[in-house]
Amino acid sequence: MNPVYLDNQSATRIDERVYEEMVPYLKENYGNAQSMHSLGAKSKDALERARSQVAQLIGSEEDEIYFTSCGSESNNLAIKGIAQAYIQKGKNIIVSAIEHFSVLYSCRRLEQSGFEITYLPVDKYGLVSPEELKNAIRSDTILVSIQHANPEIGTIQSVENLSRVAREKGVLFHTDAVCTAGTIPVDVNKLGVDLLTFSSSQIYGPKGAAALYIRKGVRVIPQIDGGIQENGRRAGTENIPAIVGFGRACEIARSEMEENYKKMLLLRNRLIEGLQERIEYIYLNGHPEKRLPGNVNFSIEFVEGEGMLLFLNEEGIYVSSGSACTSKALKMSHVLSAIKLDPAIAQGSVVMTLSKYNTDQEIDYVLEKFPPIVKRLRDMSPLYAHFLKTGKRLEAGPGTDYEHKQGEHLE
Amino acid sequence: MNPVYLDNQSATRIDERVYEEMVPYLKENYGNAQSMHSLGAKSKDALERARSQVAQLIGSEEDEIYFTSCGSESNNLAIKGIAQAYIQKGKNIIVSAIEHFSVLYSCRRLEQSGFEITYLPVDKYGLVSPEELKNAIRSDTILVSIQHANPEIGTIQSVENLSRVAREKGVLFHTDAVCTAGTIPVDVNKLGVDLLTFSSSQIYGPKGAAALYIRKGVRVIPQIDGGIQENGRRAGTENIPAIVGFGRACEIARSEMEENYKKMLLLRNRLIEGLQERIEYIYLNGHPEKRLPGNVNFSIEFVEGEGMLLFLNEEGIYVSSGSACTSKALKMSHVLSAIKLDPAIAQGSVVMTLSKYNTDQEIDYVLEKFPPIVKRLRDMSPLYAHFLKTGKRLEAGPGTDYEHKQGEHLE
Repeated sequence: MNPVYLDNQSATRIDERVYEEMVPYLKENYGNAQSMHSLGAKSKDALERARSQVAQLIGSEEDEIYFTSCGSESNNLAIKGIAQAYIQKGKNIIVSAIEHFSVLYSCRRLEQSGFEITYLPVDKYGLVSPEELKNAIRSDTILVSIQHANPEIGTIQSVENLSRVAREKGVLFHTDAVCTAGTIPVDVNKLGVDLLTFSSSQIYGPKGAAALYIRKGVRVIPQIDGGIQENGRRAGTENIPAIVGFGRACEIARSEMEENYKKMLLLRNRLIEGLQERIEYIYLNGHPEKRLPGNVNFSIEFVEGEGMLLFLNEEGIYVSSGSACTSKALKMSHVLSAIKLDPAIAQGSVVMTLSKYNTDQEIDYVLEKFPPIVKRLRDMSPLYAHFLKTGKRLEAGPGTDYEHKQGEHLE
Repeated sequence: MNPVYLDNQSATRIDERVYEEMVPYLKENYGNAQSMHSLGAKSKDALERARSQVAQLIGSEEDEIYFTSCGSESNNLAIKGIAQAYIQKGKNIIVSAIEHFSVLYSCRRLEQSGFEITYLPVDKYGLVSPEELKNAIRSDTILVSIQHANPEIGTIQSVENLSRVAREKGVLFHTDAVCTAGTIPVDVNKLGVDLLTFSSSQIYGPKGAAALYIRKGVRVIPQIDGGIQENGRRAGTENIPAIVGFGRACEIARSEMEENYKKMLLLRNRLIEGLQERIEYIYLNGHPEKRLPGNVNFSIEFVEGEGMLLFLNEEGIYVSSGSACTSKALKMSHVLSAIKLDPAIAQGSVVMTLSKYNTDQEIDYVLEKFPPIVKRLRDMSPLYAHFLKTGKRLEAGPGTDYEHKQGEHLE
């Protein structure tokens, strides 16, 4: 059996059709899209074709798409770019507590220059309340940024309801749609957003390409200054092969979305139900229904996430303990912290994210291999021994301190 | 005859060996380098192997290399990152007037938040004087940024002499070595620099990867905030295929530098001398000796650069009119402006940049096709007719205004 890859939120395998589309731009079509000769024109044409494909995925105009190098860059451009452009209007930005680090740490950076960030709480499923958003908006609020879905717990927000609140108060709305664009329907007009981040490497496209949708009329200060690329909003030689791949990936995602969605949903539900049947003291994190079709996030009591990952890896099952950006930091996820999960339980968390390539056989394999690993880990656990003996759980350790722990990697 | 590609400063063809190295990371090795499973480890290993290859090219330690998506991003990170980190020390930054736009417009951006930028003039060859630099340094100067070589006119600065001046005054020194690293010897310790930008797509590597060398102990505020990638200094999923290609490109560049240098120098000199012999009223821009081995920049009187480019393109000869980042803007180059070239002459400028792939036959072809194009354009020129008739040149039009014209694409 080949390894079972269940870490698709961190990176997906490039679709063979995407790769084929990229090859000419990695070989003979190497011109700079800004060059005035025929080889440059080939790159320029490819760039604009990709822009059209990318725009179609989210229902935007082509000239509202700005290519960047990754989702994190798009989020930085959205948050900092709006902050700098609208600083005269105010210095308050509202985000949810479970945003991606590229949103949260962009906000932290802005705090250093006098911005005030409001971190909205979420409920036990990770949902933001439109009512709470409404109450949080101030006269100096210039931006609300709330993700479309969470990469760890898979919860899908009602962005249209949240954006309506912002719009009614005349405040711009950004959503990080890295988890959704290409996986579930995303339309910038239906969602009612002014800015939207999405990325290639989560939808069977290559690494190195992402986009920021910026609604016409919205001002954004560039974060990479220099040449006239991307209409002056993002300097730097365009990464044509990656952008071409991203474009094709969007096209494929759009035309095959329904079948992939259905397929992944069946596999996801088999995996969730199968593990719940086979393992005791296992808790599903995130919303049971408002959930990405490929997301499975379990906390398993009396085991450590790291041990689980390592043993699963030995069996050729590749999973994650949380966001790829910080998984190696081995700290409690800020998302699980925000949904107020008991830290003792949160430490036994595992994230499994499916792709269109996963199969029924792979799910069978995981259902076979996973429970014995949990048993093995529990057999080594003094906490579990205590529980078996007394029927009581030991007190959880001190709660995680997001403020402190997650900020450690910043200067 | 295949097209003759003489626009290698804008982008080079990927070396076949580089491409082969990338393929596994575009296909089966698609893991996220931050993931804790075996597929993630493969990407992480590749990332660190590339970091070592890249470090060796410039004689740095591996942990002084920070990967970015392009040279422009590296320059932004250097300029803005230092400005933000050392703002307590002062708000003056010194750059040359002929820096790449990603340096100049990073400085412009900083001017908007109270920084004072000193733009050092250059002599007629494009050289910065160490004496003038010395006089320009103030007590509140925090950074000097002077390029190693200029992409348009090919002039190579004596960075070691310039950096010595900065060091003696306790000021950090950054150099943009996009034109030199991989082409001529670049050693961060011999050059005496604290930060150095270099890039993949100019040295037969893929687009989408570049690096910033940051000397140990130098503080830099990240410009893309988020995850813990690149030691917390550049968030975002690492573009492993491009970085792997960049690493291999550096390795090849290092081992074949001498032969490529000699080859390009011969071709360059044949091209320069051949055109000078065949075309009247033709002027070489840049330094005759302190010059990149692949750079040819001519101003040709009584012709328009745009017409030349188009006619050359029709003959399958791909050249540039200046920096790729702005060539489509069709404005007078800020570099030619800084060396005080007569605007009437500057408008007939053409930049030809060679690669290791160019051949003697290609130079023959250019020498055959280029002169008739100049003749054809001059035959259409009223300025030339006037000159033939009277022996006198018409007055040049109004000089270009760099302040105004080049800033137009910024908000």
